[in-house]
Amino acid sequence: MAKKILISDPTLRDGNHAVRHQLSREAFIAYCQAAEAARVPIVEVGHGNGLGASSMLVGECRLSDDEILTVSRQHLHNSRLGIHVIPGFCTIKKDLVRAIELGVDVFRIASHCTEADVTDRHIHYVRQAGKEAWGVLMMSHMASPAQLLEEARKMESYGAEAIVIMDSAGAYFPDDVKERIATLVDGLNIPVGFHGHNNLGMAVINSVTAVNEGATIIDGTIRGFGAGAGNTQLEVLVAVFERLGFDTGIDLYKILDAADIAEKEFNPVAPSISPLSIVSGLAGVFSGFAKPVARAAEDYKVDPRDIFFGLGKRNAVAGQESLIIEVARDLAEKNSAAQKG
Amino acid sequence: MAKKILISDPTLRDGNHAVRHQLSREAFIAYCQAAEAARVPIVEVGHGNGLGASSMLVGECRLSDDEILTVSRQHLHNSRLGIHVIPGFCTIKKDLVRAIELGVDVFRIASHCTEADVTDRHIHYVRQAGKEAWGVLMMSHMASPAQLLEEARKMESYGAEAIVIMDSAGAYFPDDVKERIATLVDGLNIPVGFHGHNNLGMAVINSVTAVNEGATIIDGTIRGFGAGAGNTQLEVLVAVFERLGFDTGIDLYKILDAADIAEKEFNPVAPSISPLSIVSGLAGVFSGFAKPVARAAEDYKVDPRDIFFGLGKRNAVAGQESLIIEVARDLAEKNSAAQKG
Repeated sequence: MAKKILISDPTLRDGNHAVRHQLSREAFIAYCQAAEAARVPIVEVGHGNGLGASSMLVGECRLSDDEILTVSRQHLHNSRLGIHVIPGFCTIKKDLVRAIELGVDVFRIASHCTEADVTDRHIHYVRQAGKEAWGVLMMSHMASPAQLLEEARKMESYGAEAIVIMDSAGAYFPDDVKERIATLVDGLNIPVGFHGHNNLGMAVINSVTAVNEGATIIDGTIRGFGAGAGNTQLEVLVAVFERLGFDTGIDLYKILDAADIAEKEFNPVAPSISPLSIVSGLAGVFSGFAKPVARAAEDYKVDPRDIFFGLGKRNAVAGQESLIIEVARDLAEKNSAAQKG
Repeated sequence: MAKKILISDPTLRDGNHAVRHQLSREAFIAYCQAAEAARVPIVEVGHGNGLGASSMLVGECRLSDDEILTVSRQHLHNSRLGIHVIPGFCTIKKDLVRAIELGVDVFRIASHCTEADVTDRHIHYVRQAGKEAWGVLMMSHMASPAQLLEEARKMESYGAEAIVIMDSAGAYFPDDVKERIATLVDGLNIPVGFHGHNNLGMAVINSVTAVNEGATIIDGTIRGFGAGAGNTQLEVLVAVFERLGFDTGIDLYKILDAADIAEKEFNPVAPSISPLSIVSGLAGVFSGFAKPVARAAEDYKVDPRDIFFGLGKRNAVAGQESLIIEVARDLAEKNSAAQKG
């Protein structure tokens, strides 16, 4: 019998990054219907940064969390409804309580790859409410396989029923995935999943590699809609897994139809691998830094690509925008010293 | 010392497919300058189907072969000038003679993967003129490794100085590439190369696999500009090979600049993996069939995707448009029988 793979589809969440969180009510309805028709098991929705993240700083979402969850729930019957939860953005009392009321099935509680501790209370809360909670480790290329296992074990101990590692910067090569997934599958008692980005053109093969190493959950978005160079392209995954003899339960023709529908409903065009996303992947830095990096490059008259590589060397993580100025200033000083010398 | 890889860049040839052969004189100049600045070793130019192919039937090129070769030659100094040659489109007396006069350096003489015989006279002619001739096997997934080797050996015996296999339908998985490249590297005395398309998201990893099996020539186009789902994305290849410790001799920042230039100069946007190109890759059928397939699907009220898979089962090769009608009619009959039954 073909090995089963559980596909979780964050098109209506990670895809919101590609449109500055401006997905419309119509887009949610059209895509939920298309995904339901294609038998996509889990449809993840929301602001790009998850529940409670809509804000001036991170970007205001066109729809409120309540609107998104209500409209999505109305149009998903067999497909389960999932959300992305980053403690810090998402509060338990206000946001989680409401999401449970609105019928969310799968809560994916996420932290930076070395900070699983912050997910403790959220995971416990979801489990006590009788709902499904997963642990998600973001920017997972910044931790060694052993570190990742340690963090994942914490999440497991809090009650997480699955662990997904994210290649948020699209920095992985297949061998990196192999090592990490094998370590997690070996060391955990719960299913392991992989969420790829395509900065170096490796998202599909990285997902296949993850499955070959024992991962049973794979994330993918239609047409690759998602942050930066985009996510692993869902309809390609379905085709490739079908050819390789894995069972996703998704109808190939219907998921291809969903891609056509998304092409019409969503704006702008699907993500492609831009020069900056390649640099971001090579440097292992989240591509969300692109705008402040461009500003700093302008201010200090340095190459934005050098800033990205500088950030990579300093292991910059999301939120550390102050580092950008520091790196830019250092580069400018070096350049000026080189000119004088 | 890092292993050297020779990159051959058909952006200004295969990329012409993406714009119905309408690349402008300005696009040729801008991209030749950008490729030269990035130290791209070989820049291949022309109509999408190569020298002499411009016609009502295949598509008329905006510029004549003479104009393309003249303007490209003027703007390439260190980069060598390459062309794609399909005997049948390209005559020796008229086209090859002229291309030699206009200063082409590398002649890539191509045939369907099982018809190397037709390249005999062209390869001989180019070699006798003191120019470099390669053999190119198109739609190479339709031949077994042993068959490919046999055909490649013919080309070698005609005087070919390298063999490139093309994954014209974007149908390969890494294991397919591994088997074929290993067989060719083992059985030939000349360098072996790989030309990928991205229908199943495998172009980059297939190229890496080819190199790991001993290929030393890799084709890639900027932003993936090319037929169907596009070619292997050149600037991603350069980044990935650099990370893996291979030496392409290409300047990473300058090739990223070239991608920005192409984005501005070329129309429309870079290719992406469309639903139809996935089907084309899965079926192993050249995506150039898309238009006549859509027409036949309309006429016979059948699913165009079923036609593609039907063509794949019958091993359709380019030019066999009549098969499309045959497949569509068969499908329509089956559908009608099923409805009655």
